[in-house]
Amino acid sequence: MTELRSNRGPLRVAVLGCGSVGSQVVRLLDESAVDLAARIGVPIELAGVAVRRLDAPREVEVPDGLLTTDALELVSRPDVDLVIETIGGIEPARSLILTALESGKSVVSANKALIAEDGATLFEAAEKAGRDFYFEAAVAAAIPILRPLRESLAGDRVTRVMGIVNGTTNFILDKMDTLGSGFAETLEEAQELGYAEADPTADVEGFDAAAKIAILASIAFHTRVTAADVHREGITEVTSSDVRSAAEIGSVVKLLGIAELVSTGSHDKDAVSVRVHPAMIPRSHPLASVRGPFNAVFVECDAADQLMFYGRGAGGAPTASAVLGDLVTVARHLLSGTTGAGESAYAAREVLPMGQTRTKYHVAIDVDDRAGVLAAVANAFADHDVSIQTVRQEGRGDDAQLVVVSHSATDAQLSATVEQLRGMEIVREVTSVMRVEGGDDE
Amino acid sequence: MTELRSNRGPLRVAVLGCGSVGSQVVRLLDESAVDLAARIGVPIELAGVAVRRLDAPREVEVPDGLLTTDALELVSRPDVDLVIETIGGIEPARSLILTALESGKSVVSANKALIAEDGATLFEAAEKAGRDFYFEAAVAAAIPILRPLRESLAGDRVTRVMGIVNGTTNFILDKMDTLGSGFAETLEEAQELGYAEADPTADVEGFDAAAKIAILASIAFHTRVTAADVHREGITEVTSSDVRSAAEIGSVVKLLGIAELVSTGSHDKDAVSVRVHPAMIPRSHPLASVRGPFNAVFVECDAADQLMFYGRGAGGAPTASAVLGDLVTVARHLLSGTTGAGESAYAAREVLPMGQTRTKYHVAIDVDDRAGVLAAVANAFADHDVSIQTVRQEGRGDDAQLVVVSHSATDAQLSATVEQLRGMEIVREVTSVMRVEGGDDE
Ligand SMILES: NC(=O)c1ccc[n+]([C@@H]2O[C@H](COP(=O)([O-])OP(=O)(O)OC[C@H]3O[C@@H](n4cnc5c(N)ncnc54)[C@H](OP(=O)(O)O)[C@@H]3O)[C@@H](O)[C@H]2O)c1
Ligand SMILES: NC(=O)c1ccc[n+]([C@@H]2O[C@H](COP(=O)([O-])OP(=O)(O)OC[C@H]3O[C@@H](n4cnc5c(N)ncnc54)[C@H](OP(=O)(O)O)[C@@H]3O)[C@@H](O)[C@H]2O)c1
Repeated sequence: MTELRSNRGPLRVAVLGCGSVGSQVVRLLDESAVDLAARIGVPIELAGVAVRRLDAPREVEVPDGLLTTDALELVSRPDVDLVIETIGGIEPARSLILTALESGKSVVSANKALIAEDGATLFEAAEKAGRDFYFEAAVAAAIPILRPLRESLAGDRVTRVMGIVNGTTNFILDKMDTLGSGFAETLEEAQELGYAEADPTADVEGFDAAAKIAILASIAFHTRVTAADVHREGITEVTSSDVRSAAEIGSVVKLLGIAELVSTGSHDKDAVSVRVHPAMIPRSHPLASVRGPFNAVFVECDAADQLMFYGRGAGGAPTASAVLGDLVTVARHLLSGTTGAGESAYAAREVLPMGQTRTKYHVAIDVDDRAGVLAAVANAFADHDVSIQTVRQEGRGDDAQLVVVSHSATDAQLSATVEQLRGMEIVREVTSVMRVEGGDDE
Repeated sequence: MTELRSNRGPLRVAVLGCGSVGSQVVRLLDESAVDLAARIGVPIELAGVAVRRLDAPREVEVPDGLLTTDALELVSRPDVDLVIETIGGIEPARSLILTALESGKSVVSANKALIAEDGATLFEAAEKAGRDFYFEAAVAAAIPILRPLRESLAGDRVTRVMGIVNGTTNFILDKMDTLGSGFAETLEEAQELGYAEADPTADVEGFDAAAKIAILASIAFHTRVTAADVHREGITEVTSSDVRSAAEIGSVVKLLGIAELVSTGSHDKDAVSVRVHPAMIPRSHPLASVRGPFNAVFVECDAADQLMFYGRGAGGAPTASAVLGDLVTVARHLLSGTTGAGESAYAAREVLPMGQTRTKYHVAIDVDDRAGVLAAVANAFADHDVSIQTVRQEGRGDDAQLVVVSHSATDAQLSATVEQLRGMEIVREVTSVMRVEGGDDE
């Protein structure tokens, strides 16, 4: 382990990036200096702030002479003990973090994209350097979820993690539910209100949620899971008719990140399913009342049973809160010459392809209003071995509709069923096909 | 620091108590042995289980020869590295924990009563011994709340902690809300269903919640707070009329443990108010939908904003989950020759007497139905400097009622107001007086 520069004087911290998150970190380092010093044992001193443009407007005043565009020089400086990375993206963030660790600095990062793509490289570098690499802020910002999963639940067996981990999509789906509006117009409104980016792809296509659920899955199941392992469906295809259908069965549509153990007979060989997709969940489920920009992660365990962690999943200050929580921990470790637990991937479970993952489905079908329709539709499900949990007949004449909720089945089985339904003479239209989560398991 | 017995072989753990919690700890130590070993780095071995009666029926089979009634001998044994205390109460739990720490063992405890009464003695003993004393299970059982407050939020300023931390009272109030029944009959039902003890005093009088909020306050505000510092009102006086009144203003009645910073002008001199009492909270508040035996802790911070932690606040297995989470942490520390952060009481804030704590009140008053009533009632509030936020007139004739929600005022101001109201000729009865929480602050 590289020796600590000094274990008596202040600890010096370099902040990489000074945007939404970085600027709030810089502000809080200053405003909370007295408390941070009391909680860590020594004061924290700002050693430098790396940015791309020296002259850009900033939300915070950076003390004279501390701004630099040479991030690499900053993270290699011998007078820096700790590095906070809030640049985002893969490069140069990865090289900077690796250089920092190799130079004996502990690192705190909020970079979900990088960790979900290539966390292993960073964890190994931290391990090798005998330093900490912490990243609570990367998942659901202010919500303490990684530390509870990694530490508080270390004596339990987590069986499922199910989260609303993207505020933009939650805001949009929420509006679609309360106003009955469609996806496109709601997205526009969200953009006007600043709840969605000009380019909303990362959010609405589920990339952001996929990175987060990959990180959650890795920690919950002690298995390496990357964003590429995550089956991902966004919310662009969610229609107001889906949302209405959900309401009719007492449910709401949420974009969920789900990671769960899939039984294979013996516990130690259980596989993992990791996915992001819109789903209907019952209004009585604790996740259903998570509104607007709030996020929440619902965790099921053998002994602890059901837990939920709720809070702000984005925003400069909430994210900075999580960053500074990690900073206090890694600073204490540095002072006592130790490190936290590091990566735990001993279980090395198989990540199941989506084709083998079983979920329940809600299917709404506009049908001709005549005798034998129900039997014909039921047969289409039976033909593909999809068993039906409930079926409801609604409306008469031109409005006749069948609403089927299946027992769990694979994607392959369902796609085949829907294709067959679409080809049937009595079926006018399959108006909604959506997964159903948060109820009983079969 | 006492040297570790061995830092390569298995770690040996003694469990004190084998009741609801202890038996589940013993079961999980066995069933999760493989995972615990992987997560800690070495296997955990059960060294002994101390009980009062050797021949009592147990929920778990304790391996031959491990049961003992000599707890003191067990915690002093040189071949024991870690001690888990699940006996409860003050003595002999305190002496056993102190002896364990003095003999160089790290200790995990679920004992809220002891920690809320005399935590300081235990924290100091741990500090002196260079060992850990962890107690996540003592507050809200399975819900990770102490570790997040202590670590995840260490870089933030917590301003308020508000919790439903007693399942029995939550179950009773919930039933009173949904069934419209009174306290006494609902308590009886809860006892029949096993949700309330034969002697329900600790729960319904708020003692259990007071111990938990004292512990939460200490950690959130870095200040020593004991159960004796907590202003405590139980739910025995809550009437079905209170619950109905709450429903009429879109609220529910919950027994809340509340710890909050009270501004005194400058942050570093802020005082703390710590109390347990029933209160009306809006149905839209995240705590309002916490039902039955579930618990939740709502936390407000400067940077992280609002957070909520939800889960099972009682039960053998959920409590054991929290105990084992702590066990993994303290075991890792023992192996790496370090300890966790220990007590943090540097802020040493003043704990305000209830008389100086300001809260809002809901007051329902049966009045004569005649002109001038509203003005007379408003005057009674004004006479004691209690300003009114909303007033609503309901019913006519014999059913005429005024419902007042005040702005925040002290207990003294309110008691004087209610006394004056009761003496007024036009007031037939003051039917409900209850605090209002979870809305805006003034
Ligand atoms: N915003 C959130 O709500 C949130 C929540 C959770 C996690 N995160 C994560 O936090 C990280 C930062 O997000 P953000 O919203 O703060 O991003 P941002 O506002 O775009 O800020 C990025 C900062 O990095 C700087 N930067 C970019 N390239 C650089 C380079 N090559 N060298 C040095 N500095 C460089 C930029 O400098 P200039 O200012 O000079 O352009 C800017 O200050 C991301 O990983 C994100 O995923 C964000
Ligand atoms: N139960 C919960 O849901 C819950 C939740 C959170 C925290 N806790 C806390 O966990 C602790 C244990 O609660 P519990 O519900 O498990 O209590 P419990 O069921 O009454 O069990 C207490 C155990 O301690 C043993 N014991 C009592 N006096 C002893 C002595 N002098 N020496 C050795 N053993 C002794 C008893 O032995 P015998 O079996 O021989 O009588 C029994 O096994 C308490 O501090 C409680 O506040 C409980």
